[in-house]
Parts: sequence; C-alpha cells; structure tokens
Amino acid sequence: MKTIIHGGWKTVRFQNDFSSTVEEEVATEFPLTIMLNGEEFATMICTPKDMHELVVGFLASEGIIRTYQEILSMNIDETKGFAYVEIDKPVTSLEQDHSKRFIGSCCGKSRQFYFKSDVRTTKMIKGKLSISVEQCYKLMEQLQLQSTYFHKTGGVHNAALCSIDDIFTIRTDIGRHNALDKIYGEILMKKIPLKDKLIVFSGRISSEVVLKISKIGVGILLSKSAPTDLALKLAEDLGITTVGFVRGNSMNVYTHTYRIDEII
Amino acid sequence: MKTIIHGGWKTVRFQNDFSSTVEEEVATEFPLTIMLNGEEFATMICTPKDMHELVVGFLASEGIIRTYQEILSMNIDETKGFAYVEIDKPVTSLEQDHSKRFIGSCCGKSRQFYFKSDVRTTKMIKGKLSISVEQCYKLMEQLQLQSTYFHKTGGVHNAALCSIDDIFTIRTDIGRHNALDKIYGEILMKKIPLKDKLIVFSGRISSEVVLKISKIGVGILLSKSAPTDLALKLAEDLGITTVGFVRGNSMNVYTHTYRIDEII
Repeated sequence: MKTIIHGGWKTVRFQNDFSSTVEEEVATEFPLTIMLNGEEFATMICTPKDMHELVVGFLASEGIIRTYQEILSMNIDETKGFAYVEIDKPVTSLEQDHSKRFIGSCCGKSRQFYFKSDVRTTKMIKGKLSISVEQCYKLMEQLQLQSTYFHKTGGVHNAALCSIDDIFTIRTDIGRHNALDKIYGEILMKKIPLKDKLIVFSGRISSEVVLKISKIGVGILLSKSAPTDLALKLAEDLGITTVGFVRGNSMNVYTHTYRIDEII
Repeated sequence: MKTIIHGGWKTVRFQNDFSSTVEEEVATEFPLTIMLNGEEFATMICTPKDMHELVVGFLASEGIIRTYQEILSMNIDETKGFAYVEIDKPVTSLEQDHSKRFIGSCCGKSRQFYFKSDVRTTKMIKGKLSISVEQCYKLMEQLQLQSTYFHKTGGVHNAALCSIDDIFTIRTDIGRHNALDKIYGEILMKKIPLKDKLIVFSGRISSEVVLKISKIGVGILLSKSAPTDLALKLAEDLGITTVGFVRGNSMNVYTHTYRIDEII
C-alpha cells in the first residue's frame, strides 16, 4: 500500500537576511470522500495513512455505525481519494441530516449538544481508572518522543491510546479530529478493551474533542494544549477527567479531578 | 453588545507534585447557526466576538454573496447563537450542495479543487506588492505582541490585515478559518482597498487557508506555522506568495518568491 505522508518542497530559508535554498519536508493534505451505500456522505481532509481506521472511527463518531461488524464492505481508492463503504442498513434521512443543529439536554443538566448525532452517541463515563501526576508527565513525554513525524514537517496532531504506564497505539493526522477518529477506528476494528486506557493528545481540548472521547468511552484525557469553556462543561457532565497544558513537569486538572491520585 | 470571550474555571494546577487551586481563564467556544432566508444553512463553532464580520466573511467564502450589499438584513441573537440573514436571491440547489466534492481544474493546470463553491470564488492573484524580510519579521512580532487574548487563555488563532509596515486590523477566533473569515467580512463591510495589503496569520497554511486568501484577494501570506503540500501547490497556481515558520529572525519562503525584496 502506497501512502505518501510528506513530500519535499524547494524552499528559500532566511536566517536574518541570509538566504539558502533547501528541500523542506511538508505534510501531505489529502481529500478523502466517503461514499456510503453509493451516496456521497462526507469529504474529509486528512493525512493519507491509516485511512481504514479513519473511516471506521469517523462513521462511529457520526453515529452511523456502532460496531465494525456493521460495515459489510469497505474499499479505499487511494489514488482518487474515495472510500466506498457499504453498511447493513439504509442511510436514513435522520442520518443524512446528522449535521443539523440540535438543542437538546444532556445528563439531565440541560447542556447544549450541537448536533443530533452527538445526542445518539455520547455516553456518561463511569470508569474508575486513576493515574498519578508523574505518570501523566511521562506519557506526554513519550508522545512527544514518538511524534517523529511532527518534528519533521510541523503542523500535524498526535493522539495516543495509553495504559497508565505506556503508549498502546499512536496515530497522526493533520486534522485534530482525524487523529482521534483513527484511534477510535482501531479500537473498534481490534475490539481493544478500554477499562485500563486513557487518551493522550497534542491538540486543543474543544467540545468536539470531549464529545469524541465520550463516544470512544475513555474517562481520562491528557492534552498538551488549552481547553475551551464549553469543552469543560461537557466534560463535567459526561464524567471525563480533563488535564490540559501538560508540559514538562506541570499540568492543569480541570474536571473530575478524583481520577488523579494526588488529588484527594 | 455583550460578548463573553473567555471565562474563569476552577483548576488544580500541578508543578511537579505540588498542587494549587487557581481560577484559570479559558477560551469561550460558541455555536453560531446561520439561518439563510429562513433555512438552516450552517453551524460554526466560534469565539463570540465580531460575529457580523464572521457571518459576512463566511458567506462570501462559501460563494453565497460577493458584496456586502447583497445582504438585505442580518440579525444576530447572541443569547441563542443564531444569525438570521436575508439575501436578495434564492438559495438555489446549486448553493445548497456547496459542500459536495468537485474535481475540477484550476488555472489550466488541472489541480484539484474539493468543493464547487471554491471553483466559483477563487481567483488568480496578480498584485505587485512586495515586502522585505525585515518587514516580515516585524509584522509577525507585532501580531504576537497584540495577541494578548492568546496569551491569556491559549488556543486561539489570530489573523491580521497589514500594510508592509503596520497592522491594519486584527481578528481572533478559536477557529483558524473563522479568524480569516472575520477579516474577510470586515474588508467587504468597509470596502477596504487591498492593493497595499497582506495577511499575517498564526495558524497552519492549509489548502483551505490558501483558498480563503485567494478569495479575499491578497497576494502575500505570512504564517508562524507549517504549510501542507496541497496548500503550496494551490498557492503556486493561484499566484500567492507563502511564507511559513516566521519565528524570530528566520522564515521560509515557499511560493512566488519574487514578492520578497531580497530574492532576485
């Protein structure tokens, strides 16, 4: 399988006023259109790697499938950027308007959900897994060390499924959400148990990221970046421990702090 | 007009093993749904500031309007997050499938465009404005200095419309594209002349960013971040000078290098 995830570009590099011409590696951006039961469903811009996982995770995130078994067939044309997916039920009109805005209530606390598909697929996380501060620092350090692709080209995001001591699997994409969808797809395809797992992420903690974490079914999210207010409100409602700005030996714990060992 | 762009969140902050509880400022994430001639058109997640500019810029980016005058009325309900927009033509089926994938050719060189709306709205840039390396460094420094909001909460993007010596206007959003749409909206609303203008941006140079720059009609883009391969191919075709990784006293020039004074 041929996948080009970065390429060289002839670049004029300046240091102060001095210039040199170099061949710089730049990240590949690839348009992938999902054809669902013969109908155009969505086009995503992605890093062309682990595209099967991406499609499975995306369809699960959107509430189209719940298990990998619901996919009857999947063929990806990597040259033209099309994924042909057959599922065992009709794509109903309900699912076709999956991006319509929907103001619902969540967990009885009347928070807003934006999209209908989110209402169907998010779930309250009750997992009891806990982690020490030291383990948080170490997992983020490992993510950084293993993100060699990032260091080469810049501008990609990494998501890792981890135990409290080790990275289990790591996925990369120019799209933040795609990196998480690739993780989600792999979980579904391999039926990975999640009781002892958490997610470590390079990107911002947005509401969409929190919703994805909830759909995946993991209770702890560590991120190198900042959260938003809405993400924290949702995390509070959905039972997710959010830890942001994990950098070197410092970090901020925002919600459901009881899963951090040092917090009583 | 009341707009809350960040709020406080009770946070447990760790430095090594030592914890303290602080009130941390976090960025606000706000869902804004555009109702176009009474029909739901799109929901965007944004920073609730400069929402009129955002809506105008977004509709222009999507090829729905070309001038501000095409908008007959616009009312924004800032509590519920709805923008009610009336335009002087029906939202045709052509425009309703604006997000359908479209493989077309561009500038006679058979590049791909993803979306139909892009084919209608991008244009080749032929502007002759040029800038020195020193001016590039200074503009990025100014963007950083003026991005006080970013320093407070993290995780937002900034876009500035500039002359070669000064920032003309600066806009902020948690969404990269929104920051650019706010700039675009302001340009249309105030009929700002663009001959002597360029754009300085904090976010990654993706294909979508390059397409927006082309639609806005500016020939030079400076970014703090990395480009993608597709963005550079499009910039090459569309006549845009792209400069990435502008950090301190170094930067990379990728396309149409002739607009940088020092490059002969």
